[in-house]
Amino acid sequence: MIETGPHGCRPGIASTNVHGQRMKILVTGGSGFLGQRLIRALCFRGRLQDADGVDREIGGIVALDAMSAPKAVSDPRVRYLHGDLGDAAVITAAFESGVDSVFHLAAVVSGAAEADFDLGMRVNLDGTRALLEACRRGCAPPRLVFASSVAVYGGALPDVVNDATTPAPQSSYGVQKLIGELLVGDYSRRGYIDGRALRLPTIVVRPGRPNAAASSFASGIIREPLAGVDAICPVAEGTSLWLMSPSTAIDNLLHAHETPAAAWGAMRAVNLPGLTASVRDMLDALKAVGGAPAADRVRFEVDERIARIVTGWPARFDAARARELGFSRDADIVSVVRAYAKEHVR
Amino acid sequence: MIETGPHGCRPGIASTNVHGQRMKILVTGGSGFLGQRLIRALCFRGRLQDADGVDREIGGIVALDAMSAPKAVSDPRVRYLHGDLGDAAVITAAFESGVDSVFHLAAVVSGAAEADFDLGMRVNLDGTRALLEACRRGCAPPRLVFASSVAVYGGALPDVVNDATTPAPQSSYGVQKLIGELLVGDYSRRGYIDGRALRLPTIVVRPGRPNAAASSFASGIIREPLAGVDAICPVAEGTSLWLMSPSTAIDNLLHAHETPAAAWGAMRAVNLPGLTASVRDMLDALKAVGGAPAADRVRFEVDERIARIVTGWPARFDAARARELGFSRDADIVSVVRAYAKEHVR
Repeated sequence: MIETGPHGCRPGIASTNVHGQRMKILVTGGSGFLGQRLIRALCFRGRLQDADGVDREIGGIVALDAMSAPKAVSDPRVRYLHGDLGDAAVITAAFESGVDSVFHLAAVVSGAAEADFDLGMRVNLDGTRALLEACRRGCAPPRLVFASSVAVYGGALPDVVNDATTPAPQSSYGVQKLIGELLVGDYSRRGYIDGRALRLPTIVVRPGRPNAAASSFASGIIREPLAGVDAICPVAEGTSLWLMSPSTAIDNLLHAHETPAAAWGAMRAVNLPGLTASVRDMLDALKAVGGAPAADRVRFEVDERIARIVTGWPARFDAARARELGFSRDADIVSVVRAYAKEHVR
Repeated sequence: MIETGPHGCRPGIASTNVHGQRMKILVTGGSGFLGQRLIRALCFRGRLQDADGVDREIGGIVALDAMSAPKAVSDPRVRYLHGDLGDAAVITAAFESGVDSVFHLAAVVSGAAEADFDLGMRVNLDGTRALLEACRRGCAPPRLVFASSVAVYGGALPDVVNDATTPAPQSSYGVQKLIGELLVGDYSRRGYIDGRALRLPTIVVRPGRPNAAASSFASGIIREPLAGVDAICPVAEGTSLWLMSPSTAIDNLLHAHETPAAAWGAMRAVNLPGLTASVRDMLDALKAVGGAPAADRVRFEVDERIARIVTGWPARFDAARARELGFSRDADIVSVVRAYAKEHVR
């Protein structure tokens, strides 16, 4: 009898090819906005590098999500799995066919993690740990791309944050993301995974409905007016944000995966190159794309709770390391708004 | 019927005086070297400030430790409790009479946390979380002093580390300590505790036997020769360390407790002001105190595993914030060795 490991692989076979030549990918938060978009991009692309840098065909994608959402991608390679990372049976199901690569996007967002501390700790910290442990116990260390956030920064900050600025989060979400980065770093150092963590800017423009993120308004003040709906802006118009479009975020998640481990070295987290825009800049872009009537649909009504969180995030970065690693950025806020309108507004 | 909270206190009574006027103190790692010494100092002192800054008599000290060790302090105020922080029954027992202040010293040390990842995570991360949760669920937020470590630093470091240097730990112990700091910070920000974390230098000279800390030799090369025993130094003589004597460490743990919350603000961790000394400096001090025969008892035999960990730690700091906060430092390495000899060598 051949002994098998926890995921049905024979122990001692430290090869990413143990499951055959085709890549098995796990996307957590796979029903979320970025998750769906990433899965579409993976299906379209059809190939991904393995941990040895060899380009391989994608054989299967597990889209894991705690929310049961409509299947956005109908593709025989995609298997939807509904459940919580903290549930051992869900982890087992997610890893049962082997996992070569993980995109870990699942999270309780900033506003929700601040409002419900236990929920944030359970999902953002315990869920991440359960996932990392499952990776560690697989046949071979998977590549893992972790969606972190600029919310790891807070407190007294320089005008321009650079790669040497110390993260000092002032929200539970930021603390949980930074702990996730540290764990991704240590699991990588120990050879349990080959991880990389991307500090994502605020993603605009998200389609669909508002969510519990403190930054939700940043999409709402563009999306709602372009759909002919009034919107409320809960922060002052001078408030600046560090932004990235959804398509650039997906490009960067994929690029992070394809970057060789040697390029990362010991430091597995990076500030992505975003775009600085004030609410005023965003409304000007809205006007340029949707006309004056669209821009007039935005009313200011400051929400102190949201304003306090958002103004604590840095809005200007020198993302030198990300540039060296070849990450991309959006050209300007007008093109971001225009791309959204082209894709989502009839 | 009056509803009571988890520790038998009535909810809604947010007063540190709910347990009477006398302070209840919990020391984790209470059977350890620093723990015993701290408990002796607390008993001698007899008083401590509460979270409102009011000086109160010490009514009881719970010395919690996973190791069952001889009771070093025989005092009616001290209750020894044997068990693990991860054990809910132990936590309940530790908090049953209420806790106004916590000194959290318990940890799996650096070498052991590197050798046994699961053990380090369980004690250093899960244990700290269990303790913080118990504090959060008590009647009033306790003051909590957390023993962190300069092992939070690693990787490419400047010649002199200052308060703006980003911690980038390169050991599992350092990662776990930094996560502990982040949790102490977030629990403090949320008002669950009034925490402060001290990044302790390597403590020399520890009496007794070697332990699994990678820095254990730093005490051994002084302690063993002064006792007429040969010692092996596993790092090169040019290796510099950032050091603090046990008595200064205890002074600083107590000082951290007595510093008002306002002095800490949002940043709850601090680099303590240590002393830079090379192994050569330490052996010169040994010679000055114990004579040439003592110094001749040290033999060099480099252990790559230990050397790699130790040389990754910073040895020079500008501890400006600690000086502003009023923390103290040792005068020089000779006086540190002399104080040890006076106390421990007949």
